[in-house]
Amino acid sequence: MTTGRTATRGRRPGAPDTRADILAAARALFAARGFGGTTIRAVAAEAGVDPALVHHYFGSKADLFVASLALPVDPRAVLAPVADGDVDGAAERLLRTMLAVWDDPDHRLALVATVRALLDPSGPRLFADGFLAVVIGPLGRALGIDHPDRRMALVASQVVGVLLLRYLLEVEPLASMPAESVVATYAPTVQRYLTGPLP
Amino acid sequence: MTTGRTATRGRRPGAPDTRADILAAARALFAARGFGGTTIRAVAAEAGVDPALVHHYFGSKADLFVASLALPVDPRAVLAPVADGDVDGAAERLLRTMLAVWDDPDHRLALVATVRALLDPSGPRLFADGFLAVVIGPLGRALGIDHPDRRMALVASQVVGVLLLRYLLEVEPLASMPAESVVATYAPTVQRYLTGPLP
Repeated sequence: MTTGRTATRGRRPGAPDTRADILAAARALFAARGFGGTTIRAVAAEAGVDPALVHHYFGSKADLFVASLALPVDPRAVLAPVADGDVDGAAERLLRTMLAVWDDPDHRLALVATVRALLDPSGPRLFADGFLAVVIGPLGRALGIDHPDRRMALVASQVVGVLLLRYLLEVEPLASMPAESVVATYAPTVQRYLTGPLP
Repeated sequence: MTTGRTATRGRRPGAPDTRADILAAARALFAARGFGGTTIRAVAAEAGVDPALVHHYFGSKADLFVASLALPVDPRAVLAPVADGDVDGAAERLLRTMLAVWDDPDHRLALVATVRALLDPSGPRLFADGFLAVVIGPLGRALGIDHPDRRMALVASQVVGVLLLRYLLEVEPLASMPAESVVATYAPTVQRYLTGPLP
């Protein structure tokens, strides 16, 4: 796993490439061991820096995980406003927010690459252990709903299907549907998973 | 693309391996060109046999496509009874049928491999052009619902999400939920897509 690149280059901690080295190390470790199996200490060792420097640059392991996804936006920041306001309108806000990010052609390539990495079932459980715990679970708790993990897994099962068919597999008519039609189609489903009765 | 294996072996048409050669050629061509871009004639040429022999062994191009998926069951045969009976119970029948096949541990490996091939966004549009047209669309028409292609795309967006999270990504609590709870959770959603109002 250790490449030795940082050691042979002999740069000082904090030099311009240190941040990139830490990110590369984080990506390699999350991809090999998953979110749960990766520690800040291991990432620091792989990058040849002190663990304190990893915290200094990236904050928590969750922050480092999100940074390693190389998304065009921080999904936690984008989704935070979804929790503001009436919980009965949360599904509509969630879908509208998500579609605005995905429908932006400047974002598409990076998002598709990230989703493919997260959903790759041959790799570590980056979606189940990482993205759900770091991004989707906290949104459920911010919404104040009961059974947040169970409900957010149901929400994810619908949202992932929409993303996959609309953007990655380009299934018609979903691929060409105006965003507001997609919101109107799926909001009742997602709202039921958020606040409706559970069997 | 042509391997020349059949020619160098000099077997007679109809010899034991001809069927396997045709299947291998079909798999290679569907994977390279997609369902829409593949013809029976091209498969026959790739396998070094007469097109009539491909029809004789496998029937239509749709039949050959399903055979090439190497599924443990023919999804068209499994799903056919879903169209029998009241359309208001179709979602429940569809989900129960699907879960019975997927929950069978003897089927799991083959199903996961097929879903990964169908959903691979780097490949040809095997899902959008092949599976939807050959398996899912006909079910919508057999159900006699309006806008069958649009509605079945919505159904697929939910069903694909469930399959992905429950079986491939093993997201809890979906992964361990009893089949009947999964049916009860998703039947209202799928039924709305089949027969509810469309925006």
